[in-house]
Amino acid sequence: MAGIEPAQAERRLEELGLALPAPPEPFGAYVMAVQAGPLLFLTGMLATRGREAAYVGRVGIELDLESGRDAARLAALNALALARRHLGTLDRVRRVVRLGVMIASSAGLREHPSVADGASELLQDVFGKARASSRLVYGVASLPLGSPIELELIFEIED
Amino acid sequence: MAGIEPAQAERRLEELGLALPAPPEPFGAYVMAVQAGPLLFLTGMLATRGREAAYVGRVGIELDLESGRDAARLAALNALALARRHLGTLDRVRRVVRLGVMIASSAGLREHPSVADGASELLQDVFGKARASSRLVYGVASLPLGSPIELELIFEIED
Amino acid sequence: MAGIEPAQAERRLEELGLALPAPPEPFGAYVMAVQAGPLLFLTGMLATRGREAAYVGRVGIELDLESGRDAARLAALNALALARRHLGTLDRVRRVVRLGVMIASSAGLREHPSVADGASELLQDVFGKARASSRLVYGVASLPLGSPIELELIFEIED
Repeated sequence: MAGIEPAQAERRLEELGLALPAPPEPFGAYVMAVQAGPLLFLTGMLATRGREAAYVGRVGIELDLESGRDAARLAALNALALARRHLGTLDRVRRVVRLGVMIASSAGLREHPSVADGASELLQDVFGKARASSRLVYGVASLPLGSPIELELIFEIED
Repeated sequence: MAGIEPAQAERRLEELGLALPAPPEPFGAYVMAVQAGPLLFLTGMLATRGREAAYVGRVGIELDLESGRDAARLAALNALALARRHLGTLDRVRRVVRLGVMIASSAGLREHPSVADGASELLQDVFGKARASSRLVYGVASLPLGSPIELELIFEIED
Repeated sequence: MAGIEPAQAERRLEELGLALPAPPEPFGAYVMAVQAGPLLFLTGMLATRGREAAYVGRVGIELDLESGRDAARLAALNALALARRHLGTLDRVRRVVRLGVMIASSAGLREHPSVADGASELLQDVFGKARASSRLVYGVASLPLGSPIELELIFEIED
């Protein structure tokens, strides 16, 4: 990443006036994040507030695209809260390596990229365009708690 | 992982009285495991015995939650058998980095974490809590052979 | 990978008479590939030609298995085009670490491995059997643009 300025993600969060929620806790026999070498793998992030789903339903059936985008953004805020707790500071994030966006959806949904951008745009606002992630987006049959969105995240961490 | 005792996963398997099945074989033009640096990526593990699906159906439709849990546990046993064949011994596993649990499901399923714990609890029994994985859990439309469960696994391996 | 000959993937492409398409471009706030250490993570590859879906529908409903295989092969060609643009040459690929194949499908689909082989066989033809990938295959509810196939790819890259 030579030639790319430090991310200053924590300063960007302040500039954006974004307060992070309390990080999510496990619902079962697993942990929320595991680091292996420079890669940090997060547990799937849902559109939750505390222990509750903040949105429930499938995009294109019970929920419209805008609600899907909002849910994706909320899940991304949960991911930032979790990464900060694990790392001490988001300034240790060198890169978002991969963002996976699973969308509980009808068979007819076509607008996955627009829904997923609810998460991608937040991450880009915080980490900068030079650290934009690769992305997987797909529609699933169901998600835990009835959440419309689940995010997969792999970060690369500074030494 | 300083300060964490060796996993002694093979001794734990004996103590638990668990005999591993014969490891699964490919159904197509791929291999069952690939190691890249310290990370071992397994092919998706199904709830199979030999070449046959031991469970068939979707959780919440043809199968109940308990069958889903049992299928997840069986798929995890297949994963352990495969990892042992690849590594020689499970004692070389430093950590389960990620467990992904795909559940063939109805749109209405909410209890994904409880189903997925069928796999997570087995892995925790064998590797210990200090090595618990991060986790992705989601409901899919269909799985190979009609299996209700497919597991994604990434292990970190000792040098 | 000691003892394995160089892949010579570019020469194999020529021998096979395969011309790669123009690599896909993003549909949103992300990039098409991110390298972290020796691992190259691609964005999900669809069965597209340019900006358009070349196949639309679900395998087992609107599309038959053969169309699914063809779509998987086309998505794999897009992946090769993208990897070449990122790396300069496919000869820098040491290994396909993981191939994920998501298939938009009916609940009744059982023949996922055969559909996914449309992608796996192309990759094996190009990189050789000694570099075959691990594989995840599952049926999803919907995919961007109505594509029947999305591929996840992680490559290991030569230093």
